[in-house]
Amino acid sequence: MSAPKKIAHIGIAVKSLDKTLPFYTEQLGLELVGTEIVESEQVQVAFLKIGESHIELLEPLSDESPIAKFMEKRGEGIHHIAFDVDDVTARLATLKEQGVPLIHEIPKAGAHDALIGFLHPKAANGVLYELCQYPKES
Amino acid sequence: MSAPKKIAHIGIAVKSLDKTLPFYTEQLGLELVGTEIVESEQVQVAFLKIGESHIELLEPLSDESPIAKFMEKRGEGIHHIAFDVDDVTARLATLKEQGVPLIHEIPKAGAHDALIGFLHPKAANGVLYELCQYPKES
Repeated sequence: MSAPKKIAHIGIAVKSLDKTLPFYTEQLGLELVGTEIVESEQVQVAFLKIGESHIELLEPLSDESPIAKFMEKRGEGIHHIAFDVDDVTARLATLKEQGVPLIHEIPKAGAHDALIGFLHPKAANGVLYELCQYPKES
Repeated sequence: MSAPKKIAHIGIAVKSLDKTLPFYTEQLGLELVGTEIVESEQVQVAFLKIGESHIELLEPLSDESPIAKFMEKRGEGIHHIAFDVDDVTARLATLKEQGVPLIHEIPKAGAHDALIGFLHPKAANGVLYELCQYPKES
């Protein structure tokens, strides 16, 4: 299986996009390329470009959001790292065969028409990894 | 000031490189490009290539290592995100003028002949950011 192509994004849990964005745009100098509401995760996401990757700031829209639950336990901070891969379905199947603990054994729809799957953090010493497959035309 | 160029690396604190590396190389399929001991930080670092960036796995060599102290509090996991910038000295000076809390107001020497400086995590909602400037010829 080929290597992952790049870091697609780093997801960071924040309480407030409004309060956090100025640090990223004015102090770090990153370009805000857009925001998006992901209803299924109950989050508003701000996308900041950094080279071939993005920083995704994730603000929960309700207490039921996985990001709200994460912050209850851990506070604000880095939530996950996403790698861009060619075939997320095959990759998750291979990881399952290898006994790697997964959150998603079958990919689901993510932002930007991607197919995504999360590994369980116990697979990677507490780091939460996401695998993303983007549409070929993008 | 120009935007940071890319994610230079993501630093991840681990108890044992030997126990952690197989997940990264065999399950995720990343290429191990080398290891290095950084005496000043009392860490052994494994560099894994991912697109234009690297994952750096950081194993402490003594209890005095900042990485050992981090793991005492937080356990294994993501320690910092490093951005590749053009002029770390000017950037740290500007951040200081803007009142951004810094760990290093003046850059110091890092791995791979880089000049580096860390922002204080309270600058960024708990995320520890490093700025790296690499030699022009590399």
